[in-house]
Amino acid sequence: MRGKKRKDMDNGRHQPFDKRVHFSMRLMESASTHRDIVVRKKDGFTQILLSIRSTYNNTLNREVMNEIQSALVRAAADDSKFVLLSAVGSVFCYGLDFDNFVKHLKYNRKRASVKLVDIIKNFVNTFIEFQKPIIVSVNGPAIGLGASILSLSDVVWANEKAWFQTPYTRLGQGPDDCYTITFPKILGRAAANEMLINGWKMNAQEALAKGLVSQVFWPETFTQEVMVRIKALTSCNSFVLENSKDLVHYNMKRELKQANERECEVLRKVWGSAQGMEYMLKYVENKIDTF
Amino acid sequence: MRGKKRKDMDNGRHQPFDKRVHFSMRLMESASTHRDIVVRKKDGFTQILLSIRSTYNNTLNREVMNEIQSALVRAAADDSKFVLLSAVGSVFCYGLDFDNFVKHLKYNRKRASVKLVDIIKNFVNTFIEFQKPIIVSVNGPAIGLGASILSLSDVVWANEKAWFQTPYTRLGQGPDDCYTITFPKILGRAAANEMLINGWKMNAQEALAKGLVSQVFWPETFTQEVMVRIKALTSCNSFVLENSKDLVHYNMKRELKQANERECEVLRKVWGSAQGMEYMLKYVENKIDTF
Amino acid sequence: MRGKKRKDMDNGRHQPFDKRVHFSMRLMESASTHRDIVVRKKDGFTQILLSIRSTYNNTLNREVMNEIQSALVRAAADDSKFVLLSAVGSVFCYGLDFDNFVKHLKYNRKRASVKLVDIIKNFVNTFIEFQKPIIVSVNGPAIGLGASILSLSDVVWANEKAWFQTPYTRLGQGPDDCYTITFPKILGRAAANEMLINGWKMNAQEALAKGLVSQVFWPETFTQEVMVRIKALTSCNSFVLENSKDLVHYNMKRELKQANERECEVLRKVWGSAQGMEYMLKYVENKIDTF
Repeated sequence: MRGKKRKDMDNGRHQPFDKRVHFSMRLMESASTHRDIVVRKKDGFTQILLSIRSTYNNTLNREVMNEIQSALVRAAADDSKFVLLSAVGSVFCYGLDFDNFVKHLKYNRKRASVKLVDIIKNFVNTFIEFQKPIIVSVNGPAIGLGASILSLSDVVWANEKAWFQTPYTRLGQGPDDCYTITFPKILGRAAANEMLINGWKMNAQEALAKGLVSQVFWPETFTQEVMVRIKALTSCNSFVLENSKDLVHYNMKRELKQANERECEVLRKVWGSAQGMEYMLKYVENKIDTF
Repeated sequence: MRGKKRKDMDNGRHQPFDKRVHFSMRLMESASTHRDIVVRKKDGFTQILLSIRSTYNNTLNREVMNEIQSALVRAAADDSKFVLLSAVGSVFCYGLDFDNFVKHLKYNRKRASVKLVDIIKNFVNTFIEFQKPIIVSVNGPAIGLGASILSLSDVVWANEKAWFQTPYTRLGQGPDDCYTITFPKILGRAAANEMLINGWKMNAQEALAKGLVSQVFWPETFTQEVMVRIKALTSCNSFVLENSKDLVHYNMKRELKQANERECEVLRKVWGSAQGMEYMLKYVENKIDTF
Repeated sequence: MRGKKRKDMDNGRHQPFDKRVHFSMRLMESASTHRDIVVRKKDGFTQILLSIRSTYNNTLNREVMNEIQSALVRAAADDSKFVLLSAVGSVFCYGLDFDNFVKHLKYNRKRASVKLVDIIKNFVNTFIEFQKPIIVSVNGPAIGLGASILSLSDVVWANEKAWFQTPYTRLGQGPDDCYTITFPKILGRAAANEMLINGWKMNAQEALAKGLVSQVFWPETFTQEVMVRIKALTSCNSFVLENSKDLVHYNMKRELKQANERECEVLRKVWGSAQGMEYMLKYVENKIDTF
């Protein structure tokens, strides 16, 4: 079904392979028309799984963001009570696809930076404005936008093996996804800056203690624990569910949209500058492994 | 003195029985003219103890809320420097008295829902507008409004045996008591939703780590630890005490009142609907023990 | 070089004496023209060290605050990417110099209270408006303004031996340094009040768990750990660094300045009153050791 096998799916270390198959391959026939995500409309909810063919680490480019957005638009309109977001394999999401972005930026920096940042801005706004609860099940490492997206979601469950890193400043990049207002609220200003400026890598238990994540489960039973809870949620009164989200979200919405706007403005300047490009190239060449 | 003995007061397991007597029965003569709470004006502060005759679990109906409000009004006017709120027995408060509410709602759902929600709104506003510090000593389980009231208080001490649960959404109920803005601030959005949507039960140590509670004491010495600290507080400069509360509270007040308003609007819709009633009946019949 | 030796510098218990020398004495020649602080412009950042001659505990009087402010003004204008704030010896800062303040207040309470509070207000505003990241390395106890200043900084690293206390209310003093809005956000309202009203003493690990501090290091390697991270930071893109701070800080700035204004108003009233003076005298006579 897939032309290109992903490294982590071939990796023998990961036992719950058949679980992943259960949640991706088999279900694709019934639901997915997407290239890089698997979307499955189940009874009472919609499941979106990152399953990105072009990269090993589920990084997001414009096509993937587009696919996720259209899946959310559909889930907003149908009878889904909530959305479950996760990923196939052992990685959740390594953030933006800088390899891909660099290609665009190299060609015409000024125009590409405006265009790419607009795509990110719209992607983030889709999350901010989504009215049904978004539950994220973080199966593995979450980096950059892959981590900051959690704070735009409502419930976050993590695999014990998951970890979180947002080294924007350290990589010479502007923060995105409302990181600059959500993380200081959740972690406190000092810890949020420790991640942002110094690249502090947070493990699943720390994320639980800090409140970024609301439950941590063992790898062996992760998928079951998630699905048991998901099943319980489907019996919720959808009016109450949606209104509870709205009440929690009410005061944040405007503030989040403004933060998104401001962050994108900085990002545009960074990507539009020679120095910003240089930092990005350095990152692309050295990869995250240097941390 | 009491016509109906409470189950937990008969329970031989609870050793500090005489302490409770000390704080409730004996003192009633000097102070209380209430039916379901004990109010005692002591030197420098006012003590309010839930001691609800009609239920095992200190659930709140309109009469109890009324009694608490009038005790607060009196404490606001006299020379009390602060208020100490606790409960007689081994339970703090199981939230609203749904048994009682269902009776009213069954009779005339539309009118009763408007009336009951107004009572809750006023009760919550009384806490928001109270200018002297409110110290809560949580002697046992705190559920629903019994838990969310803590975030409208200034200092919260808990017995090691206390636990906290706010499964509003899971019970098909709208959240109240400003839960939707206070708990996300204290716990982070994910953890606040984990309690709200998934009914996560938080123990005393977790509540301490998360900041919902500011001290946890052993059951054996709980009352003493509380009273030692209370005595120290009575020597505070009341001008500074009241102004410190005002400074902390200043920015929150308007936001809290608006949240109360919005939450009550949702609650009114839920209780005014057939589906909302159905969920409430299911809860009343099954009780919290099913969690 | 110094006329008056500080108690803690003579103290044989503290092994890392030569490290301190490295960061203070030797460097003075190259940089400092101040009396009570050491300022050193290094490659990419400015280091400010409290090294107060007139007190054992690095308490702040108007001269010291003035020196810190002018060092910040210079760091804002030169090519420093950030500021590193710490102290010489085993104490970070015991807050305001009440001994000194009492002398002024005794002479002319009304006028002195207005003047002293204005100095504090300006000092706090200098921190609020400083646009480059402020990194604090807390070498020892931080009390009152010495603790609350941390929440106006961007990254906070603490020595395992450091501890934090803000017993404003307990001492009959009004809180300062935006404590009343920053600490409730970081610790939650209950814990912030536990420190403010009940004088709860927080150790370094607790401060880390709560998010007031973002890293804790062992005393033996504290200075090395700090300097390794500082060195890494100097290679950051300064445009991104400054904009990241601005994004995080953006929404807080106005709120912080208003809180500073309100807190100073209370402080002025307390210091202008006979009762406020009395509490301050009691404090000065008994010292913090009574806690």
